[in-house]
Amino acid sequence: MTKYGFLGLGIMGNGMAANLVKAGYDVTVWNRSPVKCASLVAQGAKQAKTPEAVTASCDITFAMLADPEAAREVCFGPEGALAGIGEGRGYVDMSTVDEETVKAIAISITTAGGRFLESPVSGSKKPAMDGTLVILSAGDESLYKDALPAFEKMGKMSFFLEKTGQAARMKLVVNMIMGSMMTALSEGVALCRKSGLNEFQLLEVLSNGALASPMVKGKMPTMLDGVFPTNFPLKHMQKDMRLAVSLGDRLSQPLPTAAAANELFKAARKAGLSDEDFAAVFKILS
Amino acid sequence: MTKYGFLGLGIMGNGMAANLVKAGYDVTVWNRSPVKCASLVAQGAKQAKTPEAVTASCDITFAMLADPEAAREVCFGPEGALAGIGEGRGYVDMSTVDEETVKAIAISITTAGGRFLESPVSGSKKPAMDGTLVILSAGDESLYKDALPAFEKMGKMSFFLEKTGQAARMKLVVNMIMGSMMTALSEGVALCRKSGLNEFQLLEVLSNGALASPMVKGKMPTMLDGVFPTNFPLKHMQKDMRLAVSLGDRLSQPLPTAAAANELFKAARKAGLSDEDFAAVFKILS
Amino acid sequence: MTKYGFLGLGIMGNGMAANLVKAGYDVTVWNRSPVKCASLVAQGAKQAKTPEAVTASCDITFAMLADPEAAREVCFGPEGALAGIGEGRGYVDMSTVDEETVKAIAISITTAGGRFLESPVSGSKKPAMDGTLVILSAGDESLYKDALPAFEKMGKMSFFLEKTGQAARMKLVVNMIMGSMMTALSEGVALCRKSGLNEFQLLEVLSNGALASPMVKGKMPTMLDGVFPTNFPLKHMQKDMRLAVSLGDRLSQPLPTAAAANELFKAARKAGLSDEDFAAVFKILS
Amino acid sequence: MTKYGFLGLGIMGNGMAANLVKAGYDVTVWNRSPVKCASLVAQGAKQAKTPEAVTASCDITFAMLADPEAAREVCFGPEGALAGIGEGRGYVDMSTVDEETVKAIAISITTAGGRFLESPVSGSKKPAMDGTLVILSAGDESLYKDALPAFEKMGKMSFFLEKTGQAARMKLVVNMIMGSMMTALSEGVALCRKSGLNEFQLLEVLSNGALASPMVKGKMPTMLDGVFPTNFPLKHMQKDMRLAVSLGDRLSQPLPTAAAANELFKAARKAGLSDEDFAAVFKILS
Repeated sequence: MTKYGFLGLGIMGNGMAANLVKAGYDVTVWNRSPVKCASLVAQGAKQAKTPEAVTASCDITFAMLADPEAAREVCFGPEGALAGIGEGRGYVDMSTVDEETVKAIAISITTAGGRFLESPVSGSKKPAMDGTLVILSAGDESLYKDALPAFEKMGKMSFFLEKTGQAARMKLVVNMIMGSMMTALSEGVALCRKSGLNEFQLLEVLSNGALASPMVKGKMPTMLDGVFPTNFPLKHMQKDMRLAVSLGDRLSQPLPTAAAANELFKAARKAGLSDEDFAAVFKILS
Repeated sequence: MTKYGFLGLGIMGNGMAANLVKAGYDVTVWNRSPVKCASLVAQGAKQAKTPEAVTASCDITFAMLADPEAAREVCFGPEGALAGIGEGRGYVDMSTVDEETVKAIAISITTAGGRFLESPVSGSKKPAMDGTLVILSAGDESLYKDALPAFEKMGKMSFFLEKTGQAARMKLVVNMIMGSMMTALSEGVALCRKSGLNEFQLLEVLSNGALASPMVKGKMPTMLDGVFPTNFPLKHMQKDMRLAVSLGDRLSQPLPTAAAANELFKAARKAGLSDEDFAAVFKILS
Repeated sequence: MTKYGFLGLGIMGNGMAANLVKAGYDVTVWNRSPVKCASLVAQGAKQAKTPEAVTASCDITFAMLADPEAAREVCFGPEGALAGIGEGRGYVDMSTVDEETVKAIAISITTAGGRFLESPVSGSKKPAMDGTLVILSAGDESLYKDALPAFEKMGKMSFFLEKTGQAARMKLVVNMIMGSMMTALSEGVALCRKSGLNEFQLLEVLSNGALASPMVKGKMPTMLDGVFPTNFPLKHMQKDMRLAVSLGDRLSQPLPTAAAANELFKAARKAGLSDEDFAAVFKILS
Repeated sequence: MTKYGFLGLGIMGNGMAANLVKAGYDVTVWNRSPVKCASLVAQGAKQAKTPEAVTASCDITFAMLADPEAAREVCFGPEGALAGIGEGRGYVDMSTVDEETVKAIAISITTAGGRFLESPVSGSKKPAMDGTLVILSAGDESLYKDALPAFEKMGKMSFFLEKTGQAARMKLVVNMIMGSMMTALSEGVALCRKSGLNEFQLLEVLSNGALASPMVKGKMPTMLDGVFPTNFPLKHMQKDMRLAVSLGDRLSQPLPTAAAANELFKAARKAGLSDEDFAAVFKILS
C-alpha cells in the first residue's frame, strides 16, 4: 500500500489528513507544534519528528503550510522535507504560495531525484473536513496520477494544469474573484442596512436569484450575526489579492475592481481584523 | 375572473405577460410599438390602443417599462394609465425606477382613487419567460394580496417590503451587488486569459466551488464565446449602479468596490456597449 | 454710486462682503443669524431684516449661501430675494450649487424682470478675506460687466462662461480635481509616515518640485500638525465630488480616480469629520 | 580636482552629465549605446569603454539607469562598475529602483571597499537639463558630502535621508502622489471637455488657484494639444505606482486613490502608451 506523509496540520491540513486516515491509508503526519498530531494519531496516523523523517519514509508526502515562508522553511530548513526526499519519491505542495516559491521548491526536489507537484486547493475549512475541496495541480504528471486516489479522498474535483506555477496562478485568479465578490456582497449588505431595508429579505432574495452561491449563502449569515468564525483568514485573502493585483501589474492587465477590493482588505488589516474570517471585511463598511 | 392589464412588452414584459396568458387569465396588453402585441394576441390576449384603455378596463394593471422616463410617460402622458385608473383599481409598476419616480406615480394613482404597488423584479429575460422571477413589492398590501395569483405565474418568489420606495431600493442593492460581481468575474477571466491559463478549467473550478452561482455559470460562457446575447442591457445595469452609488452618497455609506465597478460600466458605455448584455463589460478588460 | 447687497455671511461671505465695505461701497447685508452682521455694520455696512429688503433697495445683490437648499430658501422663501427683485435689478448667486438650482433661480429672477448671474468662486476662507478669489460667472453678460468692479474687490480673476449653468459645472470640475488631489496627497503623507520616513522632508521635496501648489504647501502642514482649521468643510467637498461623479455618469465619462476619492470622503463623513476641513480626510488614512 | 564618472546617458543622464561637464569638471562617461557619448565628448567629457573602466579611474561615479534590471546589470555584469570600484571610491546610484536592488548594490560596493550612496531624483527631462532636480540621498554620509558640489550642479536641492533604501522609498512616495494627481487632472480635463466647457478657461482657473503647480501648468497644455513629448515615460510611472502600492500592501496602508490611478496607467500601457509621457494617460479618458 502506498505510504502517505502529511506536513502541516492547521485549519486546512488537519481535515485533509484526517480524510486520508479515515480512508484507511497508511499516513505519517508532522506538525511544527506536535500537539496538533494527537487527534490524528488517535485515529490511526503515525507521527514523525521532522519533515525529513516523513519524506524519507513515505512514497508521497503532502504539504499544507500557511504561507510561502512556512513552505520554504519546511522544505529547505534543517531536517526539512528536501533532506529526506529520495529517487522517485513524490512531494506534493498543497499550500497557496507564489510562483517563485513553487518553482524554487520544484527545482530542488527534482534536482534531488524526487518528483514534484504543486496542488493548491479551492475551498476552506469545511470542504477540507468534508473532503469536497477542488484541487488544482501542475508539475509532474506521473505523480499527479499516483496521487489521484488520495486527492479523491480530500477533494471532489481535481484538475491538471501542466506547467509548474500554473496551479498557483489559477488559485490566485479564483481567490481574486472571491475576494472582490466578498467586498461587493459586503457593500450590498451595508447599503441594505443603512437604507433601513430588511437584511433577511435581502438574504432570501440573493439566495434565490442569479447570485446564489455557496459563498453568498454561507457568508452573508455571518455578516448578519456579526460573528465571523475563521475559515479563511482575512490576512491570507489580502495576501492573495495582493499577489493577483501584482500579477495583473506585470501583465498590464487592468483590475480596478480587484484593486479597490484589495484596498478594503488592507483597511481591514489596519483595523486589526487580520486573523478573522475574510468575510469580516464587512465590519469596516457597516 | 380578475381582469389583468399589461403595459410594456419589451425583453422582460413579453415573457411576463405571456405567462399570465398561458395561465388562462383574461389579459389586455398594450405596447408603444403595437406590433409587439401580435404574438400575445395570437396566444389569446386582448389588445388595447392606449394605457388609459387598459387601466380603465382591468382590475389590476401591470407595467414593465424600460426606465423612469418611460414609466412616467406611460402613467402621466396623454391617454396614460393615470387617466383610466378608477376607484379601487390596482396599478402595479414592475419597472426598475428610482424612488422619486415611484413616489410620484404612487401619489398620483392613490390621489385618483386607485391602489398602487411597486414590484420591481430580480431576474432577466430567461427567468421572465420561465416564470421564475423574484418579485419585490411595496406599497398597498391589499393590492399585493390581490396580485399574488398573478405574481405566482410570473415569479418563483414574492416579498412584501412595506413602504413605497423600499422595493426599488432593495432592487438597487441587489443589482449593485450583481454589477460588482460581474466586473469581479470579468477581471478574473481577463487575468486568466492574459496569464496563459485555460479558461475552461477556470469555468469548471468556479462552477464547482464557493462562487458557483447561476450568474457565473450562465455569463462566463458568454465571455469565452465573445458573444453577449442581451438579457439585461449594460446601460440599464450602469444606471442601477449609478443610482445605488448615489444612494450610498446620500447615506454616507462608502461603496468603493461598487464605485470602481460603476466606472467600468461607464467605460463600457463610452466604448459603445450600451445595448449589449451587461456581461459585455468583459470586452473592455480583455 | 451702485448700491450693493450681500446675503449670507458665513465662512466665505463675511470676508467677501467686508472687501466691498472696505472699498468704500454702499453695502447692505443680511444673514439668517443677524448677529453675524455686527462686525460689518461696525465697518460701515447697512443691515436689512430680510433678503427681500436687500434686493428691493440695491442695484446688485450678491448671495453666498451654504448649499442648494439655502440658496433656494433665501431666493424663494417668504420675504425672499425674489420678492424684492425689480425690473433691471441684478441678482448674483455666488454659492456653489447644482445646475438645477441655478436654473430654477435664474428663470424666476428673469421672469420677475431681474437680471441673473451665477458666479461661484474658486478659493476658500483666506482668499475670500484677502480678495483673491477666482470668480466664474455665467448668465447675463450685462450684469457681469456691471458687477465687475465689485468682483475686482472680491477676487483676483474673473471669467465669463456664457450659458447659465456652465459656471456651476466649471466649479464642479475644479473641485473634483482638488478633492482627488487632496486624497492623493493624504495617501502619500500616510505612506511616508507608515514607511518611517521624515514627513518634513517630504513637505520640502513637494514644495520644491513639480507638485508645489498653494494647496500642497497650505494643507500638508495641517496634516503634520493633526489640526484641520476649517476653510472648506469636508461635507461640502464630498457634495461636490458626488455632483461631479454624477455629472460624469450622465455623460458616460469614466472618472475612476475621482470615484475612489469620493468614497474616501464618504468614509470620512461616516467617521464624523463632516464639519472639519476637507484636508481632514487624511485622518481616516493615517 | 575630483574625477567624476557618469554611467547612463538617457533622457535624464544626458542632461545631468552635461551640467557636470559645463561646470568644468573632469568627467568620464559611458553608455551602453556608445553613440550617445558623442555630444558630451564634444563638450569636453572623456569616454570609457566599460563601466569598470569608469569606476576604476574616477573618484566618484554617478549612475543613472532606466530600471532595476539595468542598474543591476551595469553594476554586477561583466566589466561592470563593481569590478572597478576600489578602496574608498564612491558609487552614487541615481536611478529610481526598488529597495532590494539598492540594498544589493550597496552591500556589494561596500564589501568591495567602496562607498555607496543612493540618490534618486525628483524631476524629469527639463529639470535634468536645467540643473534644477531635487536630489534625495541615503547611505554613506561622507560620500554625500563629497558629492555635494556635483549635486549642486545637477539639482537645486539635496536631502540626506540616512539609511540606505529610504531615498528610494521617498522617491516612490513622491511619484505615487504625482501619478495620482496626474490622473485626477486628466479626469478633470476630460470631464471639462465632455461637458462642453472651455478647456482653456479651466487651464487659467487652475493656474491661478490652489492647485497651481508646475505639473498642472506644464502638463495640462500637452493634454489640450494632444501631443505628449516624453519627459517621464508612462511605463516608468506605472512601475513606480506599482512599487508604491506594493509598499502600502506590505505596510497595511490603504491607498485607494493610488490604486485606482495605477489601474488607469495599466490600462494606458495596455493601450500602447508605455513610451509616451505619463501625461498621455489622459488619452484613455478622453
